Amino acid sequence: MQEDNFKVTPWEVTGKVDYEKLIQQFGTQKISESIMKDISKVSRDRMHVMLRRNIFFSHRDLDLILKDYREGRGFFLYTGRAPSMGMHIGHLVPFLFTKWLQDVFDVNVYIEITDDEKFMRNQEYTLKQTSEWAHQNILDIIAVGFNPDKTFIFKDTEYIRNMYPLVASIAKRLNFSQVKATFGLDVSSNIGILFYPAIQIVPTMFEKARCLIPAAIDQDPYWRLQRDLAESLGYHKAAEIHSKFLPPLASSDGKMSSSVPESAVYLSDPPKTVEKKIMKYAFSGGQATTELQRKLGADLNVDVPYQWLYYIFEEDDEEMKRITSEYSSGKMLTGEIKKILAQKVNELLEEHRKRRDMSEKMYSKFLYEGKLAKQMWEKIHS
Amino acid sequence: MQEDNFKVTPWEVTGKVDYEKLIQQFGTQKISESIMKDISKVSRDRMHVMLRRNIFFSHRDLDLILKDYREGRGFFLYTGRAPSMGMHIGHLVPFLFTKWLQDVFDVNVYIEITDDEKFMRNQEYTLKQTSEWAHQNILDIIAVGFNPDKTFIFKDTEYIRNMYPLVASIAKRLNFSQVKATFGLDVSSNIGILFYPAIQIVPTMFEKARCLIPAAIDQDPYWRLQRDLAESLGYHKAAEIHSKFLPPLASSDGKMSSSVPESAVYLSDPPKTVEKKIMKYAFSGGQATTELQRKLGADLNVDVPYQWLYYIFEEDDEEMKRITSEYSSGKMLTGEIKKILAQKVNELLEEHRKRRDMSEKMYSKFLYEGKLAKQMWEKIHS
Repeated sequence: MQEDNFKVTPWEVTGKVDYEKLIQQFGTQKISESIMKDISKVSRDRMHVMLRRNIFFSHRDLDLILKDYREGRGFFLYTGRAPSMGMHIGHLVPFLFTKWLQDVFDVNVYIEITDDEKFMRNQEYTLKQTSEWAHQNILDIIAVGFNPDKTFIFKDTEYIRNMYPLVASIAKRLNFSQVKATFGLDVSSNIGILFYPAIQIVPTMFEKARCLIPAAIDQDPYWRLQRDLAESLGYHKAAEIHSKFLPPLASSDGKMSSSVPESAVYLSDPPKTVEKKIMKYAFSGGQATTELQRKLGADLNVDVPYQWLYYIFEEDDEEMKRITSEYSSGKMLTGEIKKILAQKVNELLEEHRKRRDMSEKMYSKFLYEGKLAKQMWEKIHS
Repeated sequence: MQEDNFKVTPWEVTGKVDYEKLIQQFGTQKISESIMKDISKVSRDRMHVMLRRNIFFSHRDLDLILKDYREGRGFFLYTGRAPSMGMHIGHLVPFLFTKWLQDVFDVNVYIEITDDEKFMRNQEYTLKQTSEWAHQNILDIIAVGFNPDKTFIFKDTEYIRNMYPLVASIAKRLNFSQVKATFGLDVSSNIGILFYPAIQIVPTMFEKARCLIPAAIDQDPYWRLQRDLAESLGYHKAAEIHSKFLPPLASSDGKMSSSVPESAVYLSDPPKTVEKKIMKYAFSGGQATTELQRKLGADLNVDVPYQWLYYIFEEDDEEMKRITSEYSSGKMLTGEIKKILAQKVNELLEEHRKRRDMSEKMYSKFLYEGKLAKQMWEKIHS
């Protein structure tokens, strides 16, 4: 059926994604001018760079979220993470944006750490490993700066009892055929992974209010199951706001992956490593020689340093305009834009590491003792 | 393949079961004279009626259990129950026998109440229902008289967090194809029921010692999965001791079912109801008229009152011999043996209800505060 040169499923992103087409394929909505206006009314004209630049570009029911907010019913945010050995820049994107939404709308955030899924999905991993990764990843997430009294971070293996009655109610409404198609599973898939979709859906029902999930658009199919069954259980269909993919360092296609080290910049990479990775591996849309670059300029569509600056690192629109014009015209060379990026990345990482050093102290607040966390441990969801 | 007139799977028992053939089909062992002798050494010649009468007739690794016991490594017992609206006499069989084994060997007993399974297996049930049934069933189980400091009764929905890491390790080793074949599931089965086998297996690994499971032989296939994977996780293959099926009241075939009310005597049935059910519905092997019965005698093989007496209710071997001889010869009439049975059943039920009145007081001990229960709540199994 798909004659395009790209492929987007929750477990695979390849090729140069045509996001307009993807919106049609998935049946989601573009973020319209009127939605942007509604957000800016609440944010008092501050607008997150990822919205301004159209990185978050698609949604489901975001209009209903804003309506619920305006009319006092409120909403809540849900995101999550399958713990991995190290987090890279790409992993930060949904958390940075979620934190901004929390700041603007002053709402609860639930962050599910799927240590069970990670363990069951990979033959070679042990629970000890995934548990240690979970701890390390949580420290990185805390460093993003969520409100400790309105954010609950939980590991599935720890919070399962509180969720389990509702998990069972959801599991009862999903059969093998459904999760097979949606999650790319088959008869050789282990029963833990077959069951896991029910656990992923539960947090969308942590409150009776509507849930908004910020995530890359490849995650959308997972939530279709939720949207099919939520109302039969007395909850809202989950709303979503979708981002494009931050391209991996070494190619303008696909998405960044932890399993290809040179394609990613890790949050733990020291400045020299960041600089080396960007200078050496970052895929360039610049010309092969200085002469050609001066003459023809760079192809911004495939240039990774340019795109990283655009996506995350250069928030100043004026400065971004300058880079765009100079680099595309050939006034700026590849080495120069790479240097700009390396410096910006290192600034963000230094800031991140400073906050991360404080994370351990905040750990029990986000997981057990903050205002929201405490409430959540007292609740059995059923 | 199966040319017999009976069928035994964990979810269906039909026809007149040939237990000798079943042992061959399932590949289990007969309980041998030497095993009986070994048990009697510990029980000091007391022998449970269900062993004397060969109701518990088959096993896996019971010899290893007895060896572990003799050599000081010990073992533990595990049984369970999917809660139902009411428990009938047939449901008591494994509990009565398990209690006897606990008395003789002074070992821990774990009783899993699978409220999650019951809920997920039946579209029409609510969690509120299965939870209420769980409570009522637990009171009946407590009334059997287990040692409150060596018995832990738990509901899956409550104890799931303590089990979950180990559940995940087991789930990771079972795939759809395996549980499909063993549990009679298919692609339309809900993912909760597909996952459930991992939860059923976990209690076999509650201790490093060997686990013995007393159950009707139709449950054997469930444990084959456990036996395939237990050693890879550092645990023993579960041992089993298998009973025959108590025939339903109204037929000598199959097994008693809660869903056919007249086929079962409930633990809550008042004396008049018991008498009426037995006199009216109990399938008789006696002759159609008094004259024929006097002349030909009864067919004990199909006579349900006779079999119930033999299985459970007439523990006195001399008295049983007398009934056998008089009923098969025609000296005893159908009405007479039914009266004997009704009286015996009512005696047991009266005794049971007396003890059940005390159960509520013991409830928290078996579930939370007894010596074993306390230990279990402090443990995360991984």
